[in-house]
Amino acid sequence: MNVSIIAGGAGFVGCNLLPSLAAEDRHLVILDNLCRGREEYLYPVRKVAGDRVHFRNVDLSGPAGTLQAFEFAQRVGAVDEVWHLAANSDIPAGVLDASVDMRDTFMTTFSLLEAMKALKVGTLHFASSSAIYGDLDGVLLYESIGPLLPISNYGAMKLASEALISAATESYLEHANLFRFPNVVGAPATHGVILDFINKLKRDSSRLDVLGDGTQQKAYLHVSDLVAAMMHIRNSRDLPKVFPINIGPVDEGVTVRSIAESVTQRVSPAAKIRYGTGNKGWVGDVPKFRYSVDRLRQIGWSPSRNSADAVRHAVDQIATQEGFGAAEATNG
Amino acid sequence: MNVSIIAGGAGFVGCNLLPSLAAEDRHLVILDNLCRGREEYLYPVRKVAGDRVHFRNVDLSGPAGTLQAFEFAQRVGAVDEVWHLAANSDIPAGVLDASVDMRDTFMTTFSLLEAMKALKVGTLHFASSSAIYGDLDGVLLYESIGPLLPISNYGAMKLASEALISAATESYLEHANLFRFPNVVGAPATHGVILDFINKLKRDSSRLDVLGDGTQQKAYLHVSDLVAAMMHIRNSRDLPKVFPINIGPVDEGVTVRSIAESVTQRVSPAAKIRYGTGNKGWVGDVPKFRYSVDRLRQIGWSPSRNSADAVRHAVDQIATQEGFGAAEATNG
Repeated sequence: MNVSIIAGGAGFVGCNLLPSLAAEDRHLVILDNLCRGREEYLYPVRKVAGDRVHFRNVDLSGPAGTLQAFEFAQRVGAVDEVWHLAANSDIPAGVLDASVDMRDTFMTTFSLLEAMKALKVGTLHFASSSAIYGDLDGVLLYESIGPLLPISNYGAMKLASEALISAATESYLEHANLFRFPNVVGAPATHGVILDFINKLKRDSSRLDVLGDGTQQKAYLHVSDLVAAMMHIRNSRDLPKVFPINIGPVDEGVTVRSIAESVTQRVSPAAKIRYGTGNKGWVGDVPKFRYSVDRLRQIGWSPSRNSADAVRHAVDQIATQEGFGAAEATNG
Repeated sequence: MNVSIIAGGAGFVGCNLLPSLAAEDRHLVILDNLCRGREEYLYPVRKVAGDRVHFRNVDLSGPAGTLQAFEFAQRVGAVDEVWHLAANSDIPAGVLDASVDMRDTFMTTFSLLEAMKALKVGTLHFASSSAIYGDLDGVLLYESIGPLLPISNYGAMKLASEALISAATESYLEHANLFRFPNVVGAPATHGVILDFINKLKRDSSRLDVLGDGTQQKAYLHVSDLVAAMMHIRNSRDLPKVFPINIGPVDEGVTVRSIAESVTQRVSPAAKIRYGTGNKGWVGDVPKFRYSVDRLRQIGWSPSRNSADAVRHAVDQIATQEGFGAAEATNG
């Protein structure tokens, strides 16, 4: 039986992807250091595909440990694809300390590629990011735009990963999809603006302090749409050997202000929202962007929810969770 | 007195740059692991600026050693700029073993940036490469073209370095020039096609085996022009904070065939040239490219030699050197 390796598979996006992969008659080998992921996020997929779900707690920033984990996967079955979803997702933390993105976002890519080369695994699906585009000042971001000058170490290490993967497709790698994620919302959250707002309101239900003036506008995709898009691309035939593709909603996004209002209204209607100044929330934040998803539409996929619906649904998921628990994340 | 740190300063490009920097009233701190560079390459600059030339044999892929070297430089004087010319320059070696470019090209960038952050040095001049563009199939390469999908680990790690530098300009770095080198020829060579051909003719003066069919066409710049261009950009005012710029001749380059003929004619006229097949010399080789240097002309600089002149001059430099010694290098 074939085996999918899912690096970072116990994280927010990974655990949402697993059921779709498990619907095929294949084994899943999930590699995660549980730095942000949690083993309990695997319960749903274990319920439906118990003996085909294998978990290894491993730090993928080291080539030796990664190779060992791949050797384990090869004993399970024929490894035919790797999903690389492992990364630091705390952008401000990576700005303060460059070694965070270096280790968790880039060295994981290096180690996974080395293991794929050694064990002759030909197909890689990589979670890249709109952050590779840097701040192009509101210009429509299509896949072949330049120059690529990221403004955070997170974006830099995602671009560095794309570059290394691209070079690998010239020698030993057969095919690589470079999924350029927008901000993604849904449950279970490990980080991101909605979770951040909710945590603030938990600490003080009377007010919500927002970084920046709230005019930052971004496109948001619900994680269920993200997973559907990735599966659609993964199952498409005759794609270029290395295939960068934007995944996002077709709209121009929603503002931080509207997210703040949506969260407050649902969680603590009496709270007063207080805005900061400037249109950047933090160093590395891209204040506004417009995302071209023409390529995605050309290969026949569109999302079921727009940005506003995606945010609303994610906030709903939070509101119905006990003590408004884990519920949202961003990537980008 | 101000201090320039030149990382990789004992290499081919570095030792050609040093006299121009030494012409200013400043100290030069040269950091090099002498992997490809040589201390004897520093003799000319030592002759004219002896007590202002400081050399440290240091491996810049490690942050600790790099920081120590910077602390030494700060004891010499006020460090106001860093030139980052340290890199692996053997592209095929880096394709076979990804750790070579990772260590020598990318980790050096990481370490230098960490040291600049710690010691508050604001200006970086980085030797990037046309290799970041990958193989865009003969399309005119201007600085904002995309997608950037390098086909060698060398190109990938140059792009990764650009990305990390770009992110740094968003927080602690004041200004960074990203010089995108074409192939560069001149003396003293440490690697490259002319040196390769000469070494082959040294081993067997009766024939020259060329990888590929000889139709690969590239732009070549003489190292003297490269240095003049870099100094011109470095001394230009009011450039963007992070400034990617192609450096190259204005022509469309020369073919490998014409280089082979030029070398043979000069060094061993009776030798028979034998070509391989295909228009790629090796994995990671970009068969043909056209390089836009409009941006360079816009800021007021043009080269003194075209590609053909540059190659001819480099071959001349070789021919007059005893036993046709060190004489040429490529970058890209």
